[in-house]
Amino acid sequence: MTPQYILDPTLDPSYKGFPHHAPTMRRSAVGKQGWNVLRGDLPLPLAVIRGDALAGNLKWMQDFAAGHGVGLAPHGKTTMSPQLFRRQLDEGAWGLTFASVVQLRAGVAAGAQRCIIANQVFRAIDLQGIADLQRANPGLQVAFLADSLAQVELVAAWHAAHADATPFDVLLEIGVAGARTGCRTHAQALELARALRASAATRLVGIECYEGLGATGESAADTAYAQALMQRVRAIAEACDEEHLFETDEILLTAGGSAIFDLVADPLKMKLSLPVQGLLRSGCYVTHDHGTYRRFLGAVAQRMGCGHGLHAAMEVWAAVQSCPEPGLAILTVGKRDISYDLELPVPIFWCAQGSEAIQGAPPDWKIAGLNDQHAYLRGSGAEHQGLRVGDLVALGISHPCTTFDKWRWMPVVDDQYNVRDAIVTSF
Amino acid sequence: MTPQYILDPTLDPSYKGFPHHAPTMRRSAVGKQGWNVLRGDLPLPLAVIRGDALAGNLKWMQDFAAGHGVGLAPHGKTTMSPQLFRRQLDEGAWGLTFASVVQLRAGVAAGAQRCIIANQVFRAIDLQGIADLQRANPGLQVAFLADSLAQVELVAAWHAAHADATPFDVLLEIGVAGARTGCRTHAQALELARALRASAATRLVGIECYEGLGATGESAADTAYAQALMQRVRAIAEACDEEHLFETDEILLTAGGSAIFDLVADPLKMKLSLPVQGLLRSGCYVTHDHGTYRRFLGAVAQRMGCGHGLHAAMEVWAAVQSCPEPGLAILTVGKRDISYDLELPVPIFWCAQGSEAIQGAPPDWKIAGLNDQHAYLRGSGAEHQGLRVGDLVALGISHPCTTFDKWRWMPVVDDQYNVRDAIVTSF
Repeated sequence: MTPQYILDPTLDPSYKGFPHHAPTMRRSAVGKQGWNVLRGDLPLPLAVIRGDALAGNLKWMQDFAAGHGVGLAPHGKTTMSPQLFRRQLDEGAWGLTFASVVQLRAGVAAGAQRCIIANQVFRAIDLQGIADLQRANPGLQVAFLADSLAQVELVAAWHAAHADATPFDVLLEIGVAGARTGCRTHAQALELARALRASAATRLVGIECYEGLGATGESAADTAYAQALMQRVRAIAEACDEEHLFETDEILLTAGGSAIFDLVADPLKMKLSLPVQGLLRSGCYVTHDHGTYRRFLGAVAQRMGCGHGLHAAMEVWAAVQSCPEPGLAILTVGKRDISYDLELPVPIFWCAQGSEAIQGAPPDWKIAGLNDQHAYLRGSGAEHQGLRVGDLVALGISHPCTTFDKWRWMPVVDDQYNVRDAIVTSF
Repeated sequence: MTPQYILDPTLDPSYKGFPHHAPTMRRSAVGKQGWNVLRGDLPLPLAVIRGDALAGNLKWMQDFAAGHGVGLAPHGKTTMSPQLFRRQLDEGAWGLTFASVVQLRAGVAAGAQRCIIANQVFRAIDLQGIADLQRANPGLQVAFLADSLAQVELVAAWHAAHADATPFDVLLEIGVAGARTGCRTHAQALELARALRASAATRLVGIECYEGLGATGESAADTAYAQALMQRVRAIAEACDEEHLFETDEILLTAGGSAIFDLVADPLKMKLSLPVQGLLRSGCYVTHDHGTYRRFLGAVAQRMGCGHGLHAAMEVWAAVQSCPEPGLAILTVGKRDISYDLELPVPIFWCAQGSEAIQGAPPDWKIAGLNDQHAYLRGSGAEHQGLRVGDLVALGISHPCTTFDKWRWMPVVDDQYNVRDAIVTSF
């Protein structure tokens, strides 16, 4: 039973974007205040989530996974929001994925019972943290990644020093030469799998890879790359199965699933001597975006032939604070408020000061730069001359993760930007 | 009187970097737990502040300002930490600077009585927010920037609709062609100053500029640039004074003071018909850094001839989680934990797994890239061969602001990385 303070904590005006004059209130009360973003009821900048798009994304991605016969273990690092974790689980997610033990703790508090830490775990404090969580939550499954004998030795040393410790569930990570973590060769992976089998500290429960870093958005290249990687993953799974290295009732086979999930979903299904649970760990689908993921998903839609059902659900609204030169408007939003790691934000809508009529941003508007607290909107010609101090501009983002982590809460809005609900984050 | 929950809030293991097993405790209790970062008492990654360097920086910058006959109004956006706000004020700061009304509220809660909002304010909700704060805190001074008649019209419209409202204190912002906000010409600035004088909604209390964006780190160019800008600022201040446009007992003259504060401090002193208070608004000096500000301050030190007394006080510690290829170590720290907007972090120290002996990072180590939760440490040759899974690496940062905003708390440590104190942030 998830405690109330996790799903329904209190918010107050110390939260950026919360109305200055509002009293402290429970999150669930936010949607009952009658606030409207365009009417000026909340200070700007403000990151908002469009409720319809959010609901649609949660359902579409879950349906995609189910339709391909795999499970979904959405990556929690994207949102770190208990309310969104809960909705992902309620939508049918197999479990949740995390990058660290502190993130895992947040997910378990929100009700996750099956968790992947898509990262190496090896420090005493983190191993103890997992063991404590499992003791406190009977039935909780946690599997983390292993990609080296050195790591397994550290895990084994901790385990040997703790007589009451149960073995840790581990996924063997397969990597790509020149890339990040993960075993580079078949032989190296097999050697590590045997060591995991031999150790009293670990149980090999599956095979993992993360394909996202090698994706380009070009279908021919991405298809060849994904096929080669997934072929390696499957070959290693088969070899481990033949040698009876898995110690589990159900073998987990999991890929990232962020940018090219259509290319990795089907290869996650395979017949081994034990049941196999394929798992995608997509994170950014929750809000999708107007940049990087929009482009990747364009390629996914083309490959699938039937389009995709993800819609950009996150927008950051700001006001024009100065129009100091022709073709330049400075907005009250900056690097402290919005993603800038993959691409700069893009203007999508605007409203004249005092009006609630939403207009599409002219195609020549672009965000040319960000400072800590300012954005530079540039646009030339007649289309730009309408923008004045006090007008509102909505920016679409690229890479949801790095906008989520700049906000402790976000309102969930309807099409008229009425605040209907709210989520909180815990980064 | 600052309430206890502001300066001494409770922390718990939902805060990234807080020990998983620790009970909820007051911030002031953190330093009494006997925790040590190198001994593994806290999960990694972990941003830490070196207490000695912090104390030295707070004092040195305050002394610099005092020695040049100007006041310090440190920019709060850097840290958004009530504990650090309090220390800056206790050190003798004239007041604090903020970028928005929500930041202002945090500063006033921490005890600031004289505040600058180094940004345009014009929306009803923000003007109301300032008015409410001033009503609740008699004697509170707040001045915000104005750079256009359009902005003043919005302020005047709000003021006219609120019969009980007092006038807002405003600083006339002087800008640079091709740059951000601020009046581009002398004539434009004078026209705006006259409008501010004429309006019942505003009182012109000073002149502001932000020189930081034009700084290059090259002394000849920066000196010429700063001289030209400060000459414009002074000429406009004189012209406003001659026309009796200031409505105040004391004229504020303020520049940014981040990267080239030595070039703008002296020109902030001038004789007008009213007393003049020069103000620097430096923010990043609190922790300084190992990147951008280190380079800027190198030039400052050369110009001053006597060095400078700022020391890098912020480090982010991570563990080696994988050494998948020769010359490559993957660390448990990424874009969600550390600055990446101006430059990538730099390895500064390391400790072998299980040891507390700190070694300097070899000069060929560099961070070649960051993902959300991973860093790529590359280094070639013999010097690199020592790094193994479980070893700890300390990274120095570039741009303190964008590391502060990734942490809800940070331990303050001594030279042996014993946790002696803690600060919290409120982004």
